[in-house]
Amino acid sequence: MFETVLIANRGEIALRVARTCRELGIRVVMVHSTADRETWPVRFADRSVQIGPPPARHSYLNPAGIVEAALREGAEAVHPGYGFLSEDRDFAEICEAHGITFIGPPATVIERLGDKAEARRVAVDAGVPVLPGSLEALGNAVEAKRVADRIGYPVIIKAVAGGGGRGMAVVRDGHEFLQVFRETRAVAQAVFGDGRVYVERFLETARHVEVQVLADRHGRVIHLGERDCTVQRSRQKLIEETPAPALPADLRARLGEAAVRCAREVGYVGAGTVEFVVDDENNFYFIEANCRIQVEHPVTEMVTGIDLIREQLLVAAGHPLSVRQEEVSPRGVAIECRVNTEDPDRGFLPAPGVLDVFEPPGGPFTRVDTYGRAGLAITPYYDSLLAKVVVWAPDRPGAIARMERALSEFTVAGAGVHTTIGFLRDVLAHPLFRDAKHRTSLVDQMLAVSACDAGIRTAS
Amino acid sequence: MFETVLIANRGEIALRVARTCRELGIRVVMVHSTADRETWPVRFADRSVQIGPPPARHSYLNPAGIVEAALREGAEAVHPGYGFLSEDRDFAEICEAHGITFIGPPATVIERLGDKAEARRVAVDAGVPVLPGSLEALGNAVEAKRVADRIGYPVIIKAVAGGGGRGMAVVRDGHEFLQVFRETRAVAQAVFGDGRVYVERFLETARHVEVQVLADRHGRVIHLGERDCTVQRSRQKLIEETPAPALPADLRARLGEAAVRCAREVGYVGAGTVEFVVDDENNFYFIEANCRIQVEHPVTEMVTGIDLIREQLLVAAGHPLSVRQEEVSPRGVAIECRVNTEDPDRGFLPAPGVLDVFEPPGGPFTRVDTYGRAGLAITPYYDSLLAKVVVWAPDRPGAIARMERALSEFTVAGAGVHTTIGFLRDVLAHPLFRDAKHRTSLVDQMLAVSACDAGIRTAS
Repeated sequence: MFETVLIANRGEIALRVARTCRELGIRVVMVHSTADRETWPVRFADRSVQIGPPPARHSYLNPAGIVEAALREGAEAVHPGYGFLSEDRDFAEICEAHGITFIGPPATVIERLGDKAEARRVAVDAGVPVLPGSLEALGNAVEAKRVADRIGYPVIIKAVAGGGGRGMAVVRDGHEFLQVFRETRAVAQAVFGDGRVYVERFLETARHVEVQVLADRHGRVIHLGERDCTVQRSRQKLIEETPAPALPADLRARLGEAAVRCAREVGYVGAGTVEFVVDDENNFYFIEANCRIQVEHPVTEMVTGIDLIREQLLVAAGHPLSVRQEEVSPRGVAIECRVNTEDPDRGFLPAPGVLDVFEPPGGPFTRVDTYGRAGLAITPYYDSLLAKVVVWAPDRPGAIARMERALSEFTVAGAGVHTTIGFLRDVLAHPLFRDAKHRTSLVDQMLAVSACDAGIRTAS
Repeated sequence: MFETVLIANRGEIALRVARTCRELGIRVVMVHSTADRETWPVRFADRSVQIGPPPARHSYLNPAGIVEAALREGAEAVHPGYGFLSEDRDFAEICEAHGITFIGPPATVIERLGDKAEARRVAVDAGVPVLPGSLEALGNAVEAKRVADRIGYPVIIKAVAGGGGRGMAVVRDGHEFLQVFRETRAVAQAVFGDGRVYVERFLETARHVEVQVLADRHGRVIHLGERDCTVQRSRQKLIEETPAPALPADLRARLGEAAVRCAREVGYVGAGTVEFVVDDENNFYFIEANCRIQVEHPVTEMVTGIDLIREQLLVAAGHPLSVRQEEVSPRGVAIECRVNTEDPDRGFLPAPGVLDVFEPPGGPFTRVDTYGRAGLAITPYYDSLLAKVVVWAPDRPGAIARMERALSEFTVAGAGVHTTIGFLRDVLAHPLFRDAKHRTSLVDQMLAVSACDAGIRTAS
């Protein structure tokens, strides 16, 4: 096993990774921006290296600074967490070129799956269904519209270099297409430095179901079951759970097999996620694959008892996975709620500030992954994820009741600070969610109703 | 299910019980002493009633005040937690006389098992081995010595009304017997209001293994496996784990069956624990039964996924247990460390004070049951249990590594405040503990070595 690992991330995931490193006897080197100097992960680490100021491009997105820190501190491997450089094929390559193990799949795999059009081809080659759409990037707007017209509206235009819910736009009507196509290309060029886009059918009322896969360098590829991530706002996941509710057992099995086929097809190594949409007739379609640990990995850990970060480290160090497919036996139900420092009453605008009070929940079958502490200054430079509350219970109603209890005792206060705790409780209480009849449109429906209510109040 | 439950306790267990109540939709009424007014459990509750000043006899040990609060607040049931009135047959009877359900076994069962000599007879009648000793209380010192001489030294003199590690003394040599006998009787009289004692053989190098049982009013009696509580100081448990390490599978099964036989024999209802010692030849002997939830119940919850407080509430409300014996399938290993506000360098003297800093651990497979919060004033009136850190892992070395990680990140500070965190880490690091070759004498051995080291330092 590695003696020293550098964690190239911040916030809750940096702490999460560091904890497993420590349990494995690995020395932890953290990198941090000047804005994160006083945070818990930095204090937790054995060593921490300041790599620059915010915004992230001067620090967490600077491969040279991170590799330099790793070399200076004698780190044999770099764990990228999620976001930042976690799916950056160049960073993976630079690490390897300097003799540092990048904890993730090989750069070539990141490259193939990072190209969303190419990833669709991987799925097709693996015999996994994809949504009707273009199999390559579409440079020409008029040609693209012909494809869209053939598929039928609504369609979704996606950046080839996008992912994680960014760089995509839905077109509901053919005469909007050219305008949205050009905008999306411009955004993709600006955000990802790659303006290529492709088109596929958009399902208005789908469920979002993803499968966790693990693969080692010894040919073993397994899956750890699926996660339902249907509760989303602007394609950002808010609540995730496993097993996916209201999913027939045979569909569950076929999703797992499909994910493993995709991983095998591309020569995957490490922990990864294959994402699908499931329509109301229980057809499923590949949408993308993620080459990193996911924010929502704890729900899988809760039901399987498998520490995913540990498996990542084992695989990266050349060891076989610690479990075989037949040893994976999920138990019960786990739900995760993402608590963000955002103001739901102002369109989920980031609402950072200093946490005067920070009292996370605890108790039975309740896990909180957070870098929050009383006194923490939340800066506006990074994503607004403050804490992940994860609960387990033998069944879904029990898990929902436990999550409601956990959120009810979560106290966060500070000047300017708002959180999504109240909104998450509204979702948990929603009849469609409770009955597992919700679709990706749930949050938009809720917000529309609440905007309407506000309108009525204003008018009266 | 009950609409309102009164929790007649304080500290971590009051909060623990309240959490499950809330998950079941039960309104929580807490009682509190004037010293506990500002504590987390009181703030968590839906209602809280002040029942008197410390010490406990004016509040948490005052049945009349608690029953009055329950009646006034419309509580249909009282959960006594552990300690205080949890094994007080009179309190159980007073509750029932007022139409309030006592969440525990019937008063008659508490009475029989509360008399430790009578409890031995229950075990004998159930065909469960007991240590050689007297089957009834011994009033006459000379007669008692005859029994002790016949058994052979060392013997242990135990208060009939004792339990939970209190009211007992070991006699290693016959000529000390009469003196210790008289002292133990006097202590028993003073502490328990009952001077009766009995004598049994004392095993110097035993393991302490207990079995969790659950019984409902419909004739179902099951066990949830065993817990090893061998790490003790002055018969107070410091570290507990499940499954008991280095225990042959058939012995494990026989312990479970023996515990169920004891529970059936006495007509047990609710959650209870049957305690055994196991000698180096893997013989086991009943020592006592506890009519309450145990401090260490979370380790059983972690491996079985069963919420023990929920089962207590279900049974008390007349429902059947939620699981059958064949549905109980423990997974992995769980360890609990009790973090006390005591100073190991001063003979574990209570070291209360105000918690200026209180940062409990978190993360994967880690649970902390505590009423600690930054700013909490820990008073000298109650036991010194501040927090229970509980971890789970697929195997024992993984659980130990996880516990070491968890304790390493647990930060408690405040003027006058000391904790046992450092000492617990020393135990976890001890080769005998790591190899699961430790016996109940481990902590005394460690303290003797450390006293000797201190002597050498002083002398040099």
